[in-house]
Amino acid sequence: MKSVRRVLLALAVICIPSMASASGGHGPSPEIWLGLAAILIAAKLGAELAIRLKQPPVLGELCAGIVLGNLTLFGVDVFYELAHKSTIEFLAEFGVVLLLFEVGLESTVTEMKKVAPQSGMVAILGVVVPMGLGYAASYVLIPGAPQALHLFVGATLCATSVGITARVLKDLNAMDKTETKVILGAAVIDDVLGLIVLAVVSAIAMQGSMPDAVGMAKIIGLAFGFLAGALVLGMFVMPGFFKASAKLRAPGVLAALSIGLCLALAGLSALAGLAAIVGAFAAGLVLDEVHVQPFGKKSSHDLSEIVGPIVAVVAPIFFVRTGMMVELGGITSNALMLAGALSVVAVVGKLVAGWGVRGAGVDKLTIGIGMVPRGEVGLIFANVGAAIKVNGVPLIEPGVYMAIVLMVMVTTIVTPPWLAARINKVSRQAAGAKPTANSEAPPSIQPQA
Amino acid sequence: MKSVRRVLLALAVICIPSMASASGGHGPSPEIWLGLAAILIAAKLGAELAIRLKQPPVLGELCAGIVLGNLTLFGVDVFYELAHKSTIEFLAEFGVVLLLFEVGLESTVTEMKKVAPQSGMVAILGVVVPMGLGYAASYVLIPGAPQALHLFVGATLCATSVGITARVLKDLNAMDKTETKVILGAAVIDDVLGLIVLAVVSAIAMQGSMPDAVGMAKIIGLAFGFLAGALVLGMFVMPGFFKASAKLRAPGVLAALSIGLCLALAGLSALAGLAAIVGAFAAGLVLDEVHVQPFGKKSSHDLSEIVGPIVAVVAPIFFVRTGMMVELGGITSNALMLAGALSVVAVVGKLVAGWGVRGAGVDKLTIGIGMVPRGEVGLIFANVGAAIKVNGVPLIEPGVYMAIVLMVMVTTIVTPPWLAARINKVSRQAAGAKPTANSEAPPSIQPQA
Repeated sequence: MKSVRRVLLALAVICIPSMASASGGHGPSPEIWLGLAAILIAAKLGAELAIRLKQPPVLGELCAGIVLGNLTLFGVDVFYELAHKSTIEFLAEFGVVLLLFEVGLESTVTEMKKVAPQSGMVAILGVVVPMGLGYAASYVLIPGAPQALHLFVGATLCATSVGITARVLKDLNAMDKTETKVILGAAVIDDVLGLIVLAVVSAIAMQGSMPDAVGMAKIIGLAFGFLAGALVLGMFVMPGFFKASAKLRAPGVLAALSIGLCLALAGLSALAGLAAIVGAFAAGLVLDEVHVQPFGKKSSHDLSEIVGPIVAVVAPIFFVRTGMMVELGGITSNALMLAGALSVVAVVGKLVAGWGVRGAGVDKLTIGIGMVPRGEVGLIFANVGAAIKVNGVPLIEPGVYMAIVLMVMVTTIVTPPWLAARINKVSRQAAGAKPTANSEAPPSIQPQA
Repeated sequence: MKSVRRVLLALAVICIPSMASASGGHGPSPEIWLGLAAILIAAKLGAELAIRLKQPPVLGELCAGIVLGNLTLFGVDVFYELAHKSTIEFLAEFGVVLLLFEVGLESTVTEMKKVAPQSGMVAILGVVVPMGLGYAASYVLIPGAPQALHLFVGATLCATSVGITARVLKDLNAMDKTETKVILGAAVIDDVLGLIVLAVVSAIAMQGSMPDAVGMAKIIGLAFGFLAGALVLGMFVMPGFFKASAKLRAPGVLAALSIGLCLALAGLSALAGLAAIVGAFAAGLVLDEVHVQPFGKKSSHDLSEIVGPIVAVVAPIFFVRTGMMVELGGITSNALMLAGALSVVAVVGKLVAGWGVRGAGVDKLTIGIGMVPRGEVGLIFANVGAAIKVNGVPLIEPGVYMAIVLMVMVTTIVTPPWLAARINKVSRQAAGAKPTANSEAPPSIQPQA
């Protein structure tokens, strides 16, 4: 307890001056540095608390942000203002671009081709059903809103956050089960499908009105074309590019060039009217182990190791800022009803997707539960929607934004215990044995060091 | 050659769209992503070219920036505009804060105490003499300018860039020579003294007029007090803080907390009216191996490894942007004369410092030459001065800025061959032998991987 008090003391030392209004001299103002420090430290304290409560770290970072941002209810406006500073907004966006790059690094095209036969239908159902249900819920509960908003709300329900499920499955020693492979495969395909949905939906939103069939075909073509183009470019240009860079001897060349590539594709995709994260994900996808092998000892594993610390520092800025944008003061019964409805359809939609699996002897419910958490990707989509202005008003206004964040939190919280319970039940049934005391114990989520 | 062409081709693919004016939809504009990508890739190509020409990488990054920024002379304004965007300015500042943090990590208070007896006078002379000569040169060549400018120009001549010299000495297998220890010790002490000088000078500059004796004492007291306070805080609070954090299990906790600490101290020093880099350096200084040991396998070496990739990505943004700010179109004979004069006094000032060494059998000239390069720190000081506005005008205006950048380049270019020649000559004299073919060969600067 003494050490915890020391941490809190140190935090207070760091935070209190940032609450006084400071007069900057030159360069960025002191508040930015202190605010960033507070965000990073709060993020890790939140993540720590979440882990102790057997919850995913991202949930803690989100809650830390909600706490900081809503200190404004107690007269402390400094964090609310911080969240709306352009520098912090940029760093948050930078963080999420690098996060999607890291997610892309973890998946390869070859791997996706391999799991497609078994996971393909699960992934497609997992995008189409929640999207449709989400659209319907939004249509009913937000009457009179533009079509684009309903589409956007539907889109936030598409993606599966593979990270949370993967950790639970790992803790249960279930990594070699068929269900696990189907879930992880479907999650990766979901990422790609979700990004295409996001690209299409945000292009529609920015046009201001629903396009006709030709316009729609154009947007979908652009989204598919960009991803395909990035992948083809990657396959043909990247090996040469990295073979050439392997001869370079400048320090830090691998980190700088791979992140340079990520930012270039992010910029190109933004230029094409898609979200920057689409390009960042594509960059990660094409940088698989084949291309980085010319670096000798360096493998794709090392590339993740290089990108990892950078992501660990900038990605929390995104999650804390997302929490800061949740204005609890503006809670309405409408927003809560929307949050409840979205949470229900989010769960139901993915459970339905579980029935798309091929092959016998696979537990469909396990697969459905495994795909429930929305995690990072749903939040990213909500932020993209909040940044789109229609007639000067954010497409996703604060009430809807809060509902989406709550939906993400609910789906993320329910999954770990539910998935563990289901997997234990199935194994007991398969073994035909009575439940043992051991398998009744709730699973514990241990973080990866 | 084919592979070089491929790199250039890939670069063209990346750069050309960024030159077209793009219309952003949501989030940061595509130009920012593309511009950042271009900066990172140009930085590494420049660093590579520098290494092939047996020059330090930082010189190449600087030149890459000068080329990009001055494309405006050929009608390409996109990079000039990029350099003046607030996001890029912030990232550059963020890069230099992390760079100084890394420099601080590499030195410890204990180590400084050990080298102080022998290197102390060298370090003090190396700050006072160049500062005085620089002040005089500025006073003569920029008549009518405010006192604060002369002081600032003098301050840019104080610091020694230990990185460049250390690499040359390592390549010559001279790391265990007494001269090497004196040079590196004096360079570390110079960093601290230089930062104090910078703090005092920028506080004076921001007051607008020369303070009286009491005001001066206050500023100097504040600068010393801050560094001392940070160090004391570090020694007493840090061990507890990190012992507590060692119990935290959130992923990326070490990277996020140490950078959080760096940003907190940077913010506090900015709040105290000092430059943010002063706090960042202090943070690095207090985070030595003792404090990070509770992390078990993690040592201070690992902390550098975690911070390294982040610095490799953000620090080049600072150097490329510094180059971009050099407006070759505005070269005047005055600016060139100032550049020449500053280069001469920069070299002379440090050669004089070499005579401050204690003990016999040490080559004073070797020590003087080893302390000539200004490298990063001179550039950082110039940027701090350019960011200070006096009556709405930058204290360091473009002509003076260019002169300082040229001075840094000259001192950085002359050192490696000169130092190698001197060390070879001294060893030949010591051995009493005739020069061998081998020792005549020019030293080659190999980058550290």
